[in-house]
Amino acid sequence: MKFQPPKGTRDFLPEEMIKREFVIQKIKQVFEKWGYEPLDTPAIESFELLAAKSGAGQAIKDEIYYFKDKADRELGLRFEFTVSTARILASDSSIPKPFKRYQIGKVWRYDNPGYGRFREFVQADIDIFGSSLPAADAEIIAVACDVFAALGFKDFVIRVSNRKILEAFSAAIGLDEKSRLEVFRSVDKLSKIGESGVIDELKNKNIAEEKIKKILDLIKISGSTKQTMEKISNIVKKIGMSAAGIEELGSLVKEIEIFGYEKNIVVDMSLVRGLEYYTGAVFEVAVAGGNLSLAGGGRYDKMIEMVGGNPTVATGIGFGLERIIEVMKENKMLDLPKVQTKVFVANVDEKVKSSALKIASQLRKENISCQTDLMNKNLTKQLEYANSVGIPYVVIVGQKEIRSKKFKLKDMQKKTEKEMQLKDIIAVLKS
Amino acid sequence: MKFQPPKGTRDFLPEEMIKREFVIQKIKQVFEKWGYEPLDTPAIESFELLAAKSGAGQAIKDEIYYFKDKADRELGLRFEFTVSTARILASDSSIPKPFKRYQIGKVWRYDNPGYGRFREFVQADIDIFGSSLPAADAEIIAVACDVFAALGFKDFVIRVSNRKILEAFSAAIGLDEKSRLEVFRSVDKLSKIGESGVIDELKNKNIAEEKIKKILDLIKISGSTKQTMEKISNIVKKIGMSAAGIEELGSLVKEIEIFGYEKNIVVDMSLVRGLEYYTGAVFEVAVAGGNLSLAGGGRYDKMIEMVGGNPTVATGIGFGLERIIEVMKENKMLDLPKVQTKVFVANVDEKVKSSALKIASQLRKENISCQTDLMNKNLTKQLEYANSVGIPYVVIVGQKEIRSKKFKLKDMQKKTEKEMQLKDIIAVLKS
Repeated sequence: MKFQPPKGTRDFLPEEMIKREFVIQKIKQVFEKWGYEPLDTPAIESFELLAAKSGAGQAIKDEIYYFKDKADRELGLRFEFTVSTARILASDSSIPKPFKRYQIGKVWRYDNPGYGRFREFVQADIDIFGSSLPAADAEIIAVACDVFAALGFKDFVIRVSNRKILEAFSAAIGLDEKSRLEVFRSVDKLSKIGESGVIDELKNKNIAEEKIKKILDLIKISGSTKQTMEKISNIVKKIGMSAAGIEELGSLVKEIEIFGYEKNIVVDMSLVRGLEYYTGAVFEVAVAGGNLSLAGGGRYDKMIEMVGGNPTVATGIGFGLERIIEVMKENKMLDLPKVQTKVFVANVDEKVKSSALKIASQLRKENISCQTDLMNKNLTKQLEYANSVGIPYVVIVGQKEIRSKKFKLKDMQKKTEKEMQLKDIIAVLKS
Repeated sequence: MKFQPPKGTRDFLPEEMIKREFVIQKIKQVFEKWGYEPLDTPAIESFELLAAKSGAGQAIKDEIYYFKDKADRELGLRFEFTVSTARILASDSSIPKPFKRYQIGKVWRYDNPGYGRFREFVQADIDIFGSSLPAADAEIIAVACDVFAALGFKDFVIRVSNRKILEAFSAAIGLDEKSRLEVFRSVDKLSKIGESGVIDELKNKNIAEEKIKKILDLIKISGSTKQTMEKISNIVKKIGMSAAGIEELGSLVKEIEIFGYEKNIVVDMSLVRGLEYYTGAVFEVAVAGGNLSLAGGGRYDKMIEMVGGNPTVATGIGFGLERIIEVMKENKMLDLPKVQTKVFVANVDEKVKSSALKIASQLRKENISCQTDLMNKNLTKQLEYANSVGIPYVVIVGQKEIRSKKFKLKDMQKKTEKEMQLKDIIAVLKS
């Protein structure tokens, strides 16, 4: 009888964990530099809360891990973080605003597992609660840019849009609210089903062909940020629709210039992002030429009311760790050691074992990660072990070495060795 | 409608998270210095696996979060880590031994919440798989000592025992296997129900009074490590029982001396630790004078077979993060800042906003955590915000300051301020 991890979940053995931890550390450092404070919430939330946020209501039950506890309370595993923070803010309106927090942890979705898709995965999230200004959305985007730059990405692209534009546009061309929602749903699928797919879907939803054409003209606008913004402005003026969306988008673009990331920005009217709770700016990060969304977010000004709190505006972004790691691995951006242990302190025989342990203690005092023999292996077997797990150095301790105070330091990759005093060994291992 | 976190779970707002992260970082650093490698497993495991480990079988269902997924698979939230690592080792016997790994994360138990007890809590775990030597148990104990020393504990005590001693003793005085199990269960409750409680329980289980007296004589042995070891040795010789346990315990004590932690060790025959899967050495850490177990573990040589693998011996220890944090808070050992943000870069008016943002960018390049205004607050409100969240410094940016290249640095705690060049501000903030 051999057990497996449950479907859609995985184990992270050291080699993979070292990669994941490296990425998490980099992301955390950026979040903290921008003054986002750490927060953690339970993995379990009441189902009622999870359903309140999704907009989908009870239908969300099919997409998450749902269960009842022994007192028959309906619970679910969180499928993202913002709803939990919204719960906190809803129950305590005295928390100073803006409230800037980050959260990194596991979330669960009862998805169909596929490429880069798991039922249990790690998400990193930043959000700003309490600011309605485009400056807040711009900061979120600037942090995302800093994150991808810190991870070593050169050509990443942040597509930005503002849902108020497509919303007002759809209203201006005479679509009712239900049809507008259908437009959002279909446009969201553009990269999956293509232009003709979107047209077919909208036709099937009984939207008039001339309106479909107008929508496609809007979402297909392209060019430099300046050109795109001008084209959209012209349309806004021409059809006399609300200018709120384009004004916010204009401010957002201007703010991003202050941080020097304007070259990474693409204004893209086809970006709507599926989730129904977005209310304004939306954004999504991908590597240039790639379609896979590595991070995405936007403004969601209604959520805290939705969970019973005072109106509190909010904007934020979530980073999909496994996808980022996948892309980094493919591009050889995660060339890290297999283990964190730096050195194995080997003993030549039983008699010098305690000396080897004491030398290891000295190395640890210098913050050097080391292991010693725990299985009474002979020297050959100790070296084999160090080699098999990928420990880069071995120090050899024998009677002779203890007397001369000089120890052999073996470099396991270069297959070289050198006799050295302990202080010089420490210097090599720390460099 | 206000939502709460589910019963027995909690939110960690920044102030609490900073404490938890501080403790986790310290623990991780010690684990890594000893060459334990990071590992992570799913929060969800198959119920069959969780039941296999507990020894309690199906009865464990009442003590954990148990549920079925949409394909009717029986699952549960993990209640500790070792069973998951055992699963990995059982399915891949080629992993080099010893396999030394650490795991830090959330675990869940459907306990009755109480003091320092939650249904969702954080555990930190190290284990060594593949070594049967007391040297491995001693290393685990030495790492635990390093952890508590690194956290700033001065007077911590590690109680150690070996279950083989009480086991062999009980057999030698003529108890059958079922009665021996009852002895373990009752002795385990000693600190809760007292000596008379143990006596009553054993009487109720029909164990003869003269045998109960003998057991109590054994578990009440006290004194220095040397004295205790001698007394136990004498008993072992006198009644002619197996000496395996006392020999292992002797080696363990000797190994610990190498690491200089002999003064923190108390040999305590009343320590058995409830879990039925322990097979030899057992240990438990508490602060001197305290009864609360802050960490505990032992040798469990049968678990990998129990989950279907080749026989693979194992030893390890788990640290209860919330209890450690509770004790540290009570003893003022976690006097950390309320937030990680070091400085708020305030703008005097709208016109200098982008200058303030650029100065913030420069500070971030120096790894200084900073925030800027995101809500068009006036200067007074910006200072109020910084003060309310506990940001220790504010830099003030105005037209005059930009011209003179000297900025006011306000120390919010000392309520002092000084005009300085940016490079000097950076020096103060980094110190």
